[in-house]
Amino acid sequence: MASIMVMENQENGGGGGGFFGRGWRWLMNLWGKITSPIKDLASDAKKLAKDDPRRVIHALKVGLAITIVSLFYYFDHLYDGFGVNAMWAVMTVVVVFEFSVGATLGRSVNRGISTLLAGGLGFGAHHLANLSGENFEPVFLGLFVFIIAGFVTFLRFIPKLKARYDYGLLIFILTFCLISVSGYRDDEVLNMAHKRLSTVLIGGSTALAICILVCPVWAGEDLHNRVANNIDKLGTFLEGFGGEYFKTSGSENKEKKAAMEGYKSVLSTKSTDETLANFAKWEPRYGRFKYRHPWDQYLKIEAHVQECAYRIDALNTHLNSELKISNEIREKLQEPCKKVSMECGMALKELASTIDSMTTTPNVDIHTANAKSTAKILKNMLKLSSWKDNDNNLDLPEIIQVAGVVSLLLEILNCTLKIGDSVSELASLAKFKKIHGIKLVIRKKSLQRTRSTDDSPHIVVNVE
Amino acid sequence: MASIMVMENQENGGGGGGFFGRGWRWLMNLWGKITSPIKDLASDAKKLAKDDPRRVIHALKVGLAITIVSLFYYFDHLYDGFGVNAMWAVMTVVVVFEFSVGATLGRSVNRGISTLLAGGLGFGAHHLANLSGENFEPVFLGLFVFIIAGFVTFLRFIPKLKARYDYGLLIFILTFCLISVSGYRDDEVLNMAHKRLSTVLIGGSTALAICILVCPVWAGEDLHNRVANNIDKLGTFLEGFGGEYFKTSGSENKEKKAAMEGYKSVLSTKSTDETLANFAKWEPRYGRFKYRHPWDQYLKIEAHVQECAYRIDALNTHLNSELKISNEIREKLQEPCKKVSMECGMALKELASTIDSMTTTPNVDIHTANAKSTAKILKNMLKLSSWKDNDNNLDLPEIIQVAGVVSLLLEILNCTLKIGDSVSELASLAKFKKIHGIKLVIRKKSLQRTRSTDDSPHIVVNVE
Repeated sequence: MASIMVMENQENGGGGGGFFGRGWRWLMNLWGKITSPIKDLASDAKKLAKDDPRRVIHALKVGLAITIVSLFYYFDHLYDGFGVNAMWAVMTVVVVFEFSVGATLGRSVNRGISTLLAGGLGFGAHHLANLSGENFEPVFLGLFVFIIAGFVTFLRFIPKLKARYDYGLLIFILTFCLISVSGYRDDEVLNMAHKRLSTVLIGGSTALAICILVCPVWAGEDLHNRVANNIDKLGTFLEGFGGEYFKTSGSENKEKKAAMEGYKSVLSTKSTDETLANFAKWEPRYGRFKYRHPWDQYLKIEAHVQECAYRIDALNTHLNSELKISNEIREKLQEPCKKVSMECGMALKELASTIDSMTTTPNVDIHTANAKSTAKILKNMLKLSSWKDNDNNLDLPEIIQVAGVVSLLLEILNCTLKIGDSVSELASLAKFKKIHGIKLVIRKKSLQRTRSTDDSPHIVVNVE
Repeated sequence: MASIMVMENQENGGGGGGFFGRGWRWLMNLWGKITSPIKDLASDAKKLAKDDPRRVIHALKVGLAITIVSLFYYFDHLYDGFGVNAMWAVMTVVVVFEFSVGATLGRSVNRGISTLLAGGLGFGAHHLANLSGENFEPVFLGLFVFIIAGFVTFLRFIPKLKARYDYGLLIFILTFCLISVSGYRDDEVLNMAHKRLSTVLIGGSTALAICILVCPVWAGEDLHNRVANNIDKLGTFLEGFGGEYFKTSGSENKEKKAAMEGYKSVLSTKSTDETLANFAKWEPRYGRFKYRHPWDQYLKIEAHVQECAYRIDALNTHLNSELKISNEIREKLQEPCKKVSMECGMALKELASTIDSMTTTPNVDIHTANAKSTAKILKNMLKLSSWKDNDNNLDLPEIIQVAGVVSLLLEILNCTLKIGDSVSELASLAKFKKIHGIKLVIRKKSLQRTRSTDDSPHIVVNVE
């Protein structure tokens, strides 16, 4: 930005100012070039902090943990105890402290257990090589290190191990090499391994304590909310779709359209979900989540959600198509199409709030039943007999356009049912609360606004 | 597996054998439970090694590099020079050595530069805190560590920095804390920083040398081949689609169907692509790839490829639909639909071989032109006038089914054109060779097999 302004200045100023003027402008230009990426970064950082203030808190937590451990290290009486090994405590905090509790726990446990196992194995290897005499010792050691490092490196490729124990395997190689190769006498190696282990414990427990006690971020909760939000986003699109597609006026509601396009973030959600689920498995029971909460079930739900998002993406291209629909087709198909889309959207929003509140209501079934029966009407309507009286005016490309939309809507209904099934599976696995009566759930603002444009009758009775 | 067999044994054997028999079975059962996950892992490992033998070579390379550095460390004369700091060399190799050259280079450069910068800053902070007198020193040090650690931790959230410099930022925090807090005198700190830097250099250069000199794996080449393969997979589906959808016999060619479903791996390719592109940017020029090869362009191509894969996924659900098509519709639509799908498929395969061979030919344009003209015919055919003579027999749900397929095919044609544009952008950016004459390119086996089932005429003239 700054550099562009300077260049404009140059052109407007018309080369006046002589040597100093040019020099000054050159300096300003350089200054702009240096500062503009920094300004970009700063605005990025501001946005990140605003989007999720937990990030700022996380940074402060890491600072705190490292400071505490560093000062341990600084003070003499501790330093005398652990010697240079004390730096392992600082290292452990830096390397182990992650954003969520699950990730931090996973890395700590990996690091601790690997250090223990590899330390033991390394000590054994060192002792064995010692027995072979001074000449053969380096050969044996080299062989051990080569075999273990190569073998464990290969293990890191196996997806099952990579997902949860990748860091542990890395630390295993590291510790094994350090312990087995170090040229000390046996008792010193033992001492070293012991010190390394205890400093790792100090660092790890400091990191864990601060991670859990100060504003903890739970990966499991993030995953839970993420899945609910994703389903909600699909629901928002579907609730808005009917109105947008069959709209008569050309007026555009930009805010609504932006809300509808929220589904796009759902298209590529898989790898983040898997990471979160892996972290969540490390977490103890907390808040609403019991020990052994069925985290994998969320991934199953997300698979169906993503499938549904693909269909919605295809539907979105129809929204932006230029082909206009004649009044004839509009009259026939508008109502059932709108209804199916709206009911699917409402079912999805109900499913989102089922997950969100961990309470199942029969509302979902009502909406899916409505959608199913309307879908049947829609299918019947598409029999040519119902169009016969005026089929001279029929424009097939138009029907085909609408037919594409109809078939996508039917597929989306299918996906919605699948999502519903997988959510109720989650509900039974995680023992969600059940409300048997029909209940008017307090809906979000976006939904209420959309609903007011929809004229089809709903039976919603507040029983509880 | 083994445990199931044992349980079957138990049922068949009918409880005979008394105490020892039961004890023996219990032991076998336990043995099965212990060994079966190991067997699973072993078969996983075997498959991984078979799929990509470079993984085994990588494991051996890591073993070799660590062994070399460890033995350096083991021999006394080197040990005297560097002291315990020598373990940084081993650590560097373990932590820096990655599968591809780009990833290894990225981590090495990150580690080297961060160590240098943070070492300097840490030395400054240490010196500054020293000046403040013995009482205030820990306070100042703590403050410095807190500010730097917190600030840099927050920087790690910024996507631009995270993508390429995440590891460097981590090492920055680590080195800064270690250097600034260590309670030595100034000259010893300098000495320590110097030794740490030189051992990191030894470790890093050993890792790099082995990574590059022994069977190197280039991330850029992987990305290049991956994009070509993905496009090829979409092409395979489209070439096969027409025949499968309009097939008269119920016979299933399972092998062909499996090949067609290859597109599914393209649906979630984004995060791997981005990782590879980031690694590729670290790599120097090598083989066919010049310095500053346009790696980002591959991501643009992949975005269109993924969009096309979503449509193909929707098309695939039509393949599995139960609704059968009447002969009437088949006669009308079979040829143009098959042709559009086939021509798009062939265009995609041409694009794949364009990328693969880094040579542009006009073949792509011929296929897309064919597809476009057929698409026009297809659109005209869908005008109702062409159906009028027998529209009493018309079954609208059936038309609508086919119409869904048609509209998807038209969208796929659109995607193919977009992929074509982005590939030719890549071709001009990366200066692909150009062949102006029409050339019969040697095609892959799968393509030839499919082509023989297609009766539409092709003009392919071998000029060169």
